[in-house]
Amino acid sequence: MLEAGRYSLLEGIRVLDFSRVFAVPACGQFLGDLGAEVIKVEAPGNGDEARYYGMTDAELEAVGGVSPSFHAFNRNKRSITLDLRTEAGRETAHRLIRGSDVLLHNFRVGTMEKFGLGAEAILAAHPRLVYGAFSAYGSRGAKARIGANDLALQAHSGLLHITGEADRPPVRVGTAAIDLHAGMALAAGILAALFHRERTGKGQLVETSLLQGAAHLMSYFYAEYWMTGAERQRMGTANHLSVPNQVFPTADGYVVIIAPSDEMWDRLARTLDPETLLRPEFETIGGRHSHRDAVIDAISAVTRTRSSDDLLIALGAAKVNVAKVNTIGEAAEDAQLADIGGLTSVPHADGPKPAVSMPVAFGTADRQSHAPVPGLGEDTRTVCTEYGIDDAEYDRLHAAGAFGPCGTETET
Amino acid sequence: MLEAGRYSLLEGIRVLDFSRVFAVPACGQFLGDLGAEVIKVEAPGNGDEARYYGMTDAELEAVGGVSPSFHAFNRNKRSITLDLRTEAGRETAHRLIRGSDVLLHNFRVGTMEKFGLGAEAILAAHPRLVYGAFSAYGSRGAKARIGANDLALQAHSGLLHITGEADRPPVRVGTAAIDLHAGMALAAGILAALFHRERTGKGQLVETSLLQGAAHLMSYFYAEYWMTGAERQRMGTANHLSVPNQVFPTADGYVVIIAPSDEMWDRLARTLDPETLLRPEFETIGGRHSHRDAVIDAISAVTRTRSSDDLLIALGAAKVNVAKVNTIGEAAEDAQLADIGGLTSVPHADGPKPAVSMPVAFGTADRQSHAPVPGLGEDTRTVCTEYGIDDAEYDRLHAAGAFGPCGTETET
Repeated sequence: MLEAGRYSLLEGIRVLDFSRVFAVPACGQFLGDLGAEVIKVEAPGNGDEARYYGMTDAELEAVGGVSPSFHAFNRNKRSITLDLRTEAGRETAHRLIRGSDVLLHNFRVGTMEKFGLGAEAILAAHPRLVYGAFSAYGSRGAKARIGANDLALQAHSGLLHITGEADRPPVRVGTAAIDLHAGMALAAGILAALFHRERTGKGQLVETSLLQGAAHLMSYFYAEYWMTGAERQRMGTANHLSVPNQVFPTADGYVVIIAPSDEMWDRLARTLDPETLLRPEFETIGGRHSHRDAVIDAISAVTRTRSSDDLLIALGAAKVNVAKVNTIGEAAEDAQLADIGGLTSVPHADGPKPAVSMPVAFGTADRQSHAPVPGLGEDTRTVCTEYGIDDAEYDRLHAAGAFGPCGTETET
Repeated sequence: MLEAGRYSLLEGIRVLDFSRVFAVPACGQFLGDLGAEVIKVEAPGNGDEARYYGMTDAELEAVGGVSPSFHAFNRNKRSITLDLRTEAGRETAHRLIRGSDVLLHNFRVGTMEKFGLGAEAILAAHPRLVYGAFSAYGSRGAKARIGANDLALQAHSGLLHITGEADRPPVRVGTAAIDLHAGMALAAGILAALFHRERTGKGQLVETSLLQGAAHLMSYFYAEYWMTGAERQRMGTANHLSVPNQVFPTADGYVVIIAPSDEMWDRLARTLDPETLLRPEFETIGGRHSHRDAVIDAISAVTRTRSSDDLLIALGAAKVNVAKVNTIGEAAEDAQLADIGGLTSVPHADGPKPAVSMPVAFGTADRQSHAPVPGLGEDTRTVCTEYGIDDAEYDRLHAAGAFGPCGTETET
């Protein structure tokens, strides 16, 4: 079941989005899914590198010209090209900002200032604007000008240090969790500032970074360190809070089993194998902690002999927390996500493609269909017209290189 | 450098927060950090299990009675106890809802309905309310009533499947990224609904789940699967997009090095060891992909001989993306987080404790100091009074068990 999934909560809000790659484009898409009108501003020529990053020409052609990750984070946007290195490009940017409610960017610290588009100058001229700035390590301090990505912040924040097996090197968190979490924090910040503007008439700077997003994800580990001095280490799939609370091998894959309370442990033991598991030394939280290895071995001995689906049904029925370690395809195809409206459909040259919905749903019944991912610069002329740039002015800006070398922009 | 970090953007917004553990308490704290008045509603007796979860009595005593993770996610809230199993408790809940702008809960699907506090009934009576509901797998579909936690959704979503070494079992993402991401999505949804209410006067249901948060984190992997059929597998710290883009061993720990472009690779090679790295077969993105193992071995041979800090300085100066794999303590103490206002200070019985700031900063200069984490039920009477429950009524509700067995609540 695919559902359309665009709301109109932010109807009339215009977002000028200078960002690229993952974190801030995901933020822009979230605002677009909420009904904002998002204009993606890209550099002429190649545009957002996420359009093709990591893909060969043949692979790109096979998916209709833009990468799956670009597809995942750029629906409900229109695209214009602007060459900010030209006077005319910057003049156009100022014109578009004047007609916008929100600006988003993730240029390196100092770049927007170099273009005369820094927060201070722009907010002085446009005090109603909500100006969203995103960086790697924040906008001041010794690391402010260092480039970084999701993995670098996994490392810096301590997340890598606690991800992996105890006696082996750290491993990467499989997805760009810091990018997407920090991008969501920026979206929440923009929405708080829009709420505030609605009440006061005033816009403001909203700032976040990969570092702040990462620190928020790690905050309870830092709290423990600050309060007790304890520093957690990686422990495979296990966790220090309870036993069992980890991955177990099955006859055909893996499941996770979590039984934090004594009551749930009792149900687990009776369901899996009362004979080996209903032992007095395993009965209490403390007992299971002290006999961690024996508990894990005893459970594993049972799970190895049964299929993942079989365990899912048996433990689920006994109200023990259990889940299958799904592959990407199994996860994407699982009916539950579609059943809760978590899947949506985005138009594409090859026909509509399934996509993950925005991660929050609203009770208002105004869901509309999505606009497809835009071609690079395809809305340049239309958007300029909507922002009050007439034909003569457009031609002048165009001739002066505002949108890239003449002829690079495509028009719809 | 510690900074206070509470804003007043949501001044006057009252949030009644029935949630517990991580995801939604983190959402409530975010709203409180923005200036909302958050009332945490807990069950009499033990309250939110995050107050003590996974800790012995001695450990709890050493940190002043509440766990570090409770401390991390419950500042700027007041606490009341309500026994929703009693008629008087539910009557009090209705009284408090009448005076609130936002309701948050993460009870199992059906529980709030059982208490007569389900979204439909409450929104019919209070159409201006923003009602935030959070669940594990969403509120409908075959899995709606299954309990689950962060790890279960790491498994279900495919995140575990792509986290770990290629030839070994999956490992847990070290932090509760799905909890916190889904909690942030809920906060963003609540803020969008508050913005919408400001314009229309109408509240509404806002719903999310661990499943939706997880799917959003995994969305670009699902997009790739849907568009190409490819299913990514775990590959240690490496990644399919570029080489090098992973962890490398150093003389005293680990660093990550990411050089996605040919220009950055050239700088890396010249900085680390031109003799072994400046080879024609490593020069291009395609070449490094085809010779992945040789590239990794050649870099590792150099990094093993040098300290992490040394590599950080050398590669940083050459503008190559590099970061140290910090321990929890190193990450918490690193000056950059404090320099950007990412650290704050929260009052505590043992003196102020450092804490991670909300992960977004605002240009408005109205930062105030934080209120400490509340004792269980310590604000019950004060809050009732503020919501218009007079002494006689309070005594009646109290006698009828609304706040738990008489005498369990502490008063400030």
